[in-house]
Amino acid sequence: MQAEIITIGDEILIGQIVDTNSAWMAKELNNIGIHVGKITSISDQKEDIVSSLQQAMNRVSLVLITGGLGPTNDDITKKTLSDLFEMSLVQDDLIYAKVEKRLAQRGIPMNRFNCDQALVPNGAKIIPNNYGTAPCMWFEKDGKIVISMPGVPFEMKGIMRDEILNELPNYFSTPIILHKTIMTDGIGESVLAEMLSEWETNLPSCVKLAYLPSPGLVRLRMSTTGSDKKELESIIEEQLIKLRNILPENIFGYDDEPIELTVAKLLCAQSKTVGTAESCTGGNIAHLITSHSGSSAYFKGAVVAYSNEVKENLLKVKHQDLEEYGAVSQKVVEQMALGAKKVLATDYAIATSGIAGPDGGTQEKPVGTVWIAVAGPNEVVSKLFNLYPNRERNIHVASVNALNMLRKLITK
Amino acid sequence: MQAEIITIGDEILIGQIVDTNSAWMAKELNNIGIHVGKITSISDQKEDIVSSLQQAMNRVSLVLITGGLGPTNDDITKKTLSDLFEMSLVQDDLIYAKVEKRLAQRGIPMNRFNCDQALVPNGAKIIPNNYGTAPCMWFEKDGKIVISMPGVPFEMKGIMRDEILNELPNYFSTPIILHKTIMTDGIGESVLAEMLSEWETNLPSCVKLAYLPSPGLVRLRMSTTGSDKKELESIIEEQLIKLRNILPENIFGYDDEPIELTVAKLLCAQSKTVGTAESCTGGNIAHLITSHSGSSAYFKGAVVAYSNEVKENLLKVKHQDLEEYGAVSQKVVEQMALGAKKVLATDYAIATSGIAGPDGGTQEKPVGTVWIAVAGPNEVVSKLFNLYPNRERNIHVASVNALNMLRKLITK
Repeated sequence: MQAEIITIGDEILIGQIVDTNSAWMAKELNNIGIHVGKITSISDQKEDIVSSLQQAMNRVSLVLITGGLGPTNDDITKKTLSDLFEMSLVQDDLIYAKVEKRLAQRGIPMNRFNCDQALVPNGAKIIPNNYGTAPCMWFEKDGKIVISMPGVPFEMKGIMRDEILNELPNYFSTPIILHKTIMTDGIGESVLAEMLSEWETNLPSCVKLAYLPSPGLVRLRMSTTGSDKKELESIIEEQLIKLRNILPENIFGYDDEPIELTVAKLLCAQSKTVGTAESCTGGNIAHLITSHSGSSAYFKGAVVAYSNEVKENLLKVKHQDLEEYGAVSQKVVEQMALGAKKVLATDYAIATSGIAGPDGGTQEKPVGTVWIAVAGPNEVVSKLFNLYPNRERNIHVASVNALNMLRKLITK
Repeated sequence: MQAEIITIGDEILIGQIVDTNSAWMAKELNNIGIHVGKITSISDQKEDIVSSLQQAMNRVSLVLITGGLGPTNDDITKKTLSDLFEMSLVQDDLIYAKVEKRLAQRGIPMNRFNCDQALVPNGAKIIPNNYGTAPCMWFEKDGKIVISMPGVPFEMKGIMRDEILNELPNYFSTPIILHKTIMTDGIGESVLAEMLSEWETNLPSCVKLAYLPSPGLVRLRMSTTGSDKKELESIIEEQLIKLRNILPENIFGYDDEPIELTVAKLLCAQSKTVGTAESCTGGNIAHLITSHSGSSAYFKGAVVAYSNEVKENLLKVKHQDLEEYGAVSQKVVEQMALGAKKVLATDYAIATSGIAGPDGGTQEKPVGTVWIAVAGPNEVVSKLFNLYPNRERNIHVASVNALNMLRKLITK
């Protein structure tokens, strides 16, 4: 069962926003056995919408569309779809009342733009939007389904979760799609490919393997499709056992679990806590950890010590060591970790100090020089990294490496 | 001048990664007058690559492709393009030496997978990759250009910047495309549309207007295309003057400048500093501020006070007030802001305390209840926000609102 996704909006085509909707929708559709064959992003122009949708409907039975449903004149998706499906726009009183109520809660009266949001194509199934004002429209024609949703990710996700994902399996007989992602570190992509070469050649033909390298790690993904979930699971499990034999040391997680969640589970299992002392990562590690609900159980806090005064005053780094070795040094980063562990009263602490760039590098300590320390109950471990000329990448990779060092210390 | 982008990779179609390459490329192409008409994401399958590329080449003269160039068996873009353009794969000694040297620096010997990366289509222009091992390929056929680049964003961006963006204008006569984005807050999309209705109707036909709502703000984008940059600039400037007359209070920035940069400019202009005390935002405000180079000039640090002990010990919040009013209260958030200003020794401080969710809400303080305070040289201002049931959105919106409160305090 194949579907396609079309995202509509000039803002995507001029690069003003990144289309995050498609990845989310693709993942959710995959979970219910629907495979996305193509994702297309097009502009708010009638002819583009019509031709892209017609082509997609020629290829697949299900097309999901987001975007172009706002109340303003630049949004033309609803009018275009109504024309294409030969339906007239009529007022839906329920939707009208819903929009009116929603705006009233925010103290805004109805105006003609909002009134237009209650116009719906006569003949489409109308699904109210509990997260915004533009309703979702479900069209059926010649056995094909076309669903048009707002482009605001929060609204689209709510509608998909509440109304679409549980409804689609009633329309299509879908196979089971299973993916298993294995997170490895310590081996580059091509060396890994060589190590896995024999295993890969002997994989059952129903298992597809992919290598997904990213800074500091390589993810392996096995994918398989069939009708018997149990059978697919045992096929994957059998290959996992073989894989763990080939890579006894390098697998550190599964299924795209972010490293901060792997660490979270380890901390929770031991009822331990962590805090961070961040210079070059600027709070990003704390942000990653606290992005997950429940983090207050193991995360107590952070000191983002961007200036040397904060390193001294809050983390008790010795003034003389800052003078003598500089902020980006083993001496300082270890004191930061120990200081954070003490002032935040945690079992573990992570500290980073480096030159994120693009400015601030010297011959001795070029941009990308990053010291990371992790302190545990009985020890402090530190490591020097020579990363990249790019600020964003340095912050990201330093954060991932710091969390990975913590993982290794906890599991040592 | 129209181009299309094709991104290749099963990981995009199963939603394992978000395609961020397209937005970046589209923005850069726009800057040199090339308009992206369509973005297509497809799987690592020969027939999909061939049909999508042929369709794109029928529509436009320039197609940029990313992905599918890794050393492993699942990546088939190079082989597929060579077949399509009827070229054989031959070893490029320069690329071979480059790959070998690159791996040697990391202590890795060449293996057959890496050797394959030095195979290139005989007849394509080969552009070395200074950021990774897979070279970029530039094909020309019947006046059309097809450029294939690696999918790793860091590598693609490097190649585009170094070799592609300055070369393309030699091949195409491109118009000037001008976008002007105006950031507004305090008025919802539909009310704004009504206020701007007359102005919008009277816009010159060469100016296209779009509304881009996002949590807490609406961006307006004027776009125009032509051959005379000065003339386009004066058309936009004329409309900007009219717009500022209609919205004297609500425009707070231009051209998608993130709020933390708007604040940064204000702080720099007055040689003032800021720090943060974050509970529910968990370090995200510090992360946003420190994402920008040069932030050490105005940002001294942060205390992420996730636990009450940290609020007391580091920020000097009164124990009794935490007991009496709870951590999510005006009393506590104001003390957090004042405490941060003092311990971080800054001119301004931002503090957040709220219930990000999905757990932790009560009848009195449901998920989405967020107190924000900003402290300045002479005062502290605080405000209660009732946000969303969604954690990610609460963290984001609270961060943006906190920075916006700081902006208002500085400009008061």
